[in-house]
Amino acid sequence: MEGRVHQVDDSHRVMTPQLDMPERLLLGPGPSNMHPRVRQALGMNEVGHLDPRFIGLMNESQELLRYVWQTDNRFTIPVSGTGSAAMEAALANCVEPGDVVLVGVNGYFGERLCDMASRYGANVRRLEKPWGETFDPEEIAIGLETHRPALLGLIHAETSTGALQPMTGIGKLCREFDCLLLLDTVTSLGGVPVFLDRWHVDISYSATQKCLSCPPGLAPLTLGDRALAKLNNRKLKVANWYLDMSLVGKYWGQERTYHHTAPINMNYALREALRLIAEEGLWDRWEKHTANAEMLWEGLADLGIGCHVEKEFRLPSLTTALVPDGVDSKGVCAFLLQNYNIEIAAGLGQLAGKVWRIGLMGFNSRAENVLLLLAALKKALETCG
Amino acid sequence: MEGRVHQVDDSHRVMTPQLDMPERLLLGPGPSNMHPRVRQALGMNEVGHLDPRFIGLMNESQELLRYVWQTDNRFTIPVSGTGSAAMEAALANCVEPGDVVLVGVNGYFGERLCDMASRYGANVRRLEKPWGETFDPEEIAIGLETHRPALLGLIHAETSTGALQPMTGIGKLCREFDCLLLLDTVTSLGGVPVFLDRWHVDISYSATQKCLSCPPGLAPLTLGDRALAKLNNRKLKVANWYLDMSLVGKYWGQERTYHHTAPINMNYALREALRLIAEEGLWDRWEKHTANAEMLWEGLADLGIGCHVEKEFRLPSLTTALVPDGVDSKGVCAFLLQNYNIEIAAGLGQLAGKVWRIGLMGFNSRAENVLLLLAALKKALETCG
Repeated sequence: MEGRVHQVDDSHRVMTPQLDMPERLLLGPGPSNMHPRVRQALGMNEVGHLDPRFIGLMNESQELLRYVWQTDNRFTIPVSGTGSAAMEAALANCVEPGDVVLVGVNGYFGERLCDMASRYGANVRRLEKPWGETFDPEEIAIGLETHRPALLGLIHAETSTGALQPMTGIGKLCREFDCLLLLDTVTSLGGVPVFLDRWHVDISYSATQKCLSCPPGLAPLTLGDRALAKLNNRKLKVANWYLDMSLVGKYWGQERTYHHTAPINMNYALREALRLIAEEGLWDRWEKHTANAEMLWEGLADLGIGCHVEKEFRLPSLTTALVPDGVDSKGVCAFLLQNYNIEIAAGLGQLAGKVWRIGLMGFNSRAENVLLLLAALKKALETCG
Repeated sequence: MEGRVHQVDDSHRVMTPQLDMPERLLLGPGPSNMHPRVRQALGMNEVGHLDPRFIGLMNESQELLRYVWQTDNRFTIPVSGTGSAAMEAALANCVEPGDVVLVGVNGYFGERLCDMASRYGANVRRLEKPWGETFDPEEIAIGLETHRPALLGLIHAETSTGALQPMTGIGKLCREFDCLLLLDTVTSLGGVPVFLDRWHVDISYSATQKCLSCPPGLAPLTLGDRALAKLNNRKLKVANWYLDMSLVGKYWGQERTYHHTAPINMNYALREALRLIAEEGLWDRWEKHTANAEMLWEGLADLGIGCHVEKEFRLPSLTTALVPDGVDSKGVCAFLLQNYNIEIAAGLGQLAGKVWRIGLMGFNSRAENVLLLLAALKKALETCG
């Protein structure tokens, strides 16, 4: 066989010890810790991606995703990548070159939507608000009137700012202006109320590693009828083969045509994560997230720490806590990680140095985690303040 | 909180039983079964994607990927998607609109390269051979001379045909013609000799679920200096945000800048899979793949089953076995799955109905698996013949 003449070069053959990761409590902007039952599912024996048993699992996960999103959309699948892959899939499939795309930019992920849309030839327009604020329906209406976009993109739960975008009335406005509504539910799905169909959302995506409490590696995507019509009537092929939903949809649809090899074990994990939500019930899960977030906010106030976002628009799954004057925000993160194996994150972009980002997502939204974090933060402030 | 006025719709809240997957022996074109140690690593407690402990793991995996590819390429990373995502990353980053891209098309995955390259605006030219044959250096030279491509794409191990492309001399030809050489090593990496640097390959990618014996969900990618120069001198942004290696490279490089959340647990699994190869040694691993493939080929001959590919060009990791006249190829696959939990695959495209595709990849390349498969095939032929 070819290659027999060559010597194998061992210079990169490093010998590494057995994998040994610390037990971190992940209370940052994601990933969150997976539920123990998700871990069990993740390690189950693989089957093939066209195995009849795997196809059965695909149907179950699709149905459960419809439940957590509160949608009847037939096209509801986990994309084989992380959240940003599904964000990109949403735009790649539903935007054609020259389309006006209006993006609500009030944080880091709105910026990302603009960058991605521009790569697919969109004429990107920005509706801007300071980081931490949200858009009201009047502002949206003016934006639609001014720009007449083919698509409006909003971030439901801005992981960079901790703000929750109210959705009442926006979907109807978009229909009046014959505009597709895209909603990023990465940090809301499974943690705070999402009613896609009632809100007339046409396109949404999320990620497994936030309020679904599953490891990162899959990203749910759902397309309503108006989005599918746009996809089916494209003049040009989707400029992205891996994320071309006209092809991927045939694997997840009736045809079961091979497109790419689905991440089998990650799909086991996602099914179990969704199953846990179906058992708990969305209503109880949302209430739990709210109650634990309020416990956090009160505890922070007792420590003299405020929140960046007004209470009305504050996201229960991700809190941006204001760093007190004179405190080294990154120093506190490092202290918590090194001393207590707790991960929280520093601010991003405009909020760098100004806030900490504290996530209470899915399985991690538990009173004992709030208590521990508050006690640990108290120690950190005494040490790093 | 918004949504409190709505009732939760329970119509998609299906109650599903505990996940229970059969113990399949995966001897098709992939996925192959993971090694038990990989399974253990997969389930380990998550840490954050910017955790210092995860960054240490990233460095180890990159170094071990260099070993299995036999390359010194600094840019060597696992892409956060399956094999096709890395194929697309290779093209999206190294092809600019208008570039002439010459693809060796002698199977299904050469066709895929053509489709993907065209979506990035390439002027695609095809060098064709019947499915199951390979290209010799003279044919490549004529192709380079005729088309003067910016990039030549070849499939090292064609999973659809079972042919192994000889590489001696091709890289030097590409340098003479100032052409980048892209080599798909999806079904060869970790199973048959690959010497990227000796072969002067500029761009290569693979997948975790073949000879690396890790679940699907990550896809190694490596870019040499000439490929990086092409990327760094692009006139336009990469038309794909998720796979833009000028951004992803900053997360895997010195900067550690957040791009997307890496699939943490899949990266645990990949590290362990690579560690197993480093322990075994490439040479022994390749020899094992050859020995077990030869045992399979001899056993098939004893059953009156020939191979589609001439022995000289036959791939040890994936055999295309000729379906005897009058035998229902899909019926045999179903029989093996239903009766013995063994997965092999039917032919794809031009070879549909004509061959079975039998994989002996990584951990699954074991004498006991060959013995079992041959015994099971004998039973299947008696029943389905």
